Amino acid sequence: MNEPDGGLLSLNTATVRQQWSLPQIIDGCVRHGIRGIAPWRDQVAAAGLKDCAVRIRDGGLTVTGYCRGGMFPAMERADRRAALDDNRRAVDEALTLGAQCLILVVGGLPRYGDGTLSKDLAGAREMVRDGIGELLGYAHGAGMPLAIEPLHPMYAADRACVNTMAHANDLCDELGSGVGIAVDAYHVWWDPQLAREIERAGSKSPSRLLAYHISDWLVPTADLLTDRGMMGDGVIDLRLMRSWMEAHGYRGFHEVEIFSANNWWKRDPDEVLAICKARHVQCS
Amino acid sequence: MNEPDGGLLSLNTATVRQQWSLPQIIDGCVRHGIRGIAPWRDQVAAAGLKDCAVRIRDGGLTVTGYCRGGMFPAMERADRRAALDDNRRAVDEALTLGAQCLILVVGGLPRYGDGTLSKDLAGAREMVRDGIGELLGYAHGAGMPLAIEPLHPMYAADRACVNTMAHANDLCDELGSGVGIAVDAYHVWWDPQLAREIERAGSKSPSRLLAYHISDWLVPTADLLTDRGMMGDGVIDLRLMRSWMEAHGYRGFHEVEIFSANNWWKRDPDEVLAICKARHVQCS
Repeated sequence: MNEPDGGLLSLNTATVRQQWSLPQIIDGCVRHGIRGIAPWRDQVAAAGLKDCAVRIRDGGLTVTGYCRGGMFPAMERADRRAALDDNRRAVDEALTLGAQCLILVVGGLPRYGDGTLSKDLAGAREMVRDGIGELLGYAHGAGMPLAIEPLHPMYAADRACVNTMAHANDLCDELGSGVGIAVDAYHVWWDPQLAREIERAGSKSPSRLLAYHISDWLVPTADLLTDRGMMGDGVIDLRLMRSWMEAHGYRGFHEVEIFSANNWWKRDPDEVLAICKARHVQCS
Repeated sequence: MNEPDGGLLSLNTATVRQQWSLPQIIDGCVRHGIRGIAPWRDQVAAAGLKDCAVRIRDGGLTVTGYCRGGMFPAMERADRRAALDDNRRAVDEALTLGAQCLILVVGGLPRYGDGTLSKDLAGAREMVRDGIGELLGYAHGAGMPLAIEPLHPMYAADRACVNTMAHANDLCDELGSGVGIAVDAYHVWWDPQLAREIERAGSKSPSRLLAYHISDWLVPTADLLTDRGMMGDGVIDLRLMRSWMEAHGYRGFHEVEIFSANNWWKRDPDEVLAICKARHVQCS
């Protein structure tokens, strides 16, 4: 299998979020010749939406995804409506930034008024389907693709109750045009149905393969949230996974997204970006 | 949905392994009126196999599973053969103990000679299939059912690369008689295909539903290995899952298996057993 085109590297800004503000990250990408970026809403809000859009455009960067919409489940109808309103604003921001898609982390089990979590997983999944369905009317009309990101099953309770490509494909089947999938290697690498479901997503017209995120699974993994590895430091066969994406038509960016409280978030961010660049070509 | 029959509670000895030796655990089960037990090989070895078998029989306890065989993948053929030999010994021990099945934690990615892990997940899964297939010839002839335990996907790299009921059912289809599945709520609760795959396993003759393990998924989960919850303290709808097991013919024990370094392993083990009994009826 071939090395990837180094020009397809994109930086999810979570990777250096502890060290740099979004304007600093934009400058860093330009300085390092990284041509894609995927910013988070809180960083955009802190730096100012319009200013960020101008900086990103002036830097010649492609916004490979906007992080993030979602978090649909809630017990009370008013809270579900508030989530939907917030998601519409995320669509608007994504449009202002010229993002290729809005990433959806769909949310987990809703909480009762006293703070305890519901155990109704099927019900949460229905709320997710209905929430995406409602948002889709707005996003599709505005021309902003929605990218469902299946998260690792260890996040099913509290972050996203869509945990496999098969489930995401089923949702896309049900919801129709305007919604696709963000394939994150960290979340789906273990799935024995992965190759088949990438093929299923890529065989649609238009393709559902809207984004591809890379990092690595470390052994051991010390923390469920913030111990992701740099490409090459873990066990994911990223070259094989990219070959599946490419075999089924994916030609987009490869977005590095690393949450790493005890390693990469503590390093010199210029060093982190240089290593991302090198490892992207060597190990993904 | 109904409360479970309290007489169907079984204790996986890992639940109090930090506090008690196996003879103490056997006595504890008898004292608390817990009628099933699932011991681990290291505890049996420490206490003596024959002595344990006598104590368990004298206590009137049913051995709902023997923990554990598996760990099939290895780079070198000699190491795979050694694993197989060890698994045959586990079958023999399970027979001596009168266990209902030998639990298989199948193993993850094999290591190279220098200690680095392979990234060949499909290859590891082939080693697992081949290993179970070879062991099956021995176990089936001896009358000891093998129970594949799909582990949560967060253990795919280092403990078990069979991570869904669907994969376990596929293996059973391929391998034929004598092998079934241990359904552990902690590992499979998140799976959108769970109800369907329990039905698939239960519809076979004989049923593949060889064991049912219970605990709970805590939010947040502080550690990937040793932060399981007591039934009722987390988000798993155990009553619903049991209803699926029962609807598809499962009439066996409900085995409590809790790894909990910072809570249950630090408590008075008599208190732990009393709470297991109460929560089994109230929350599972």
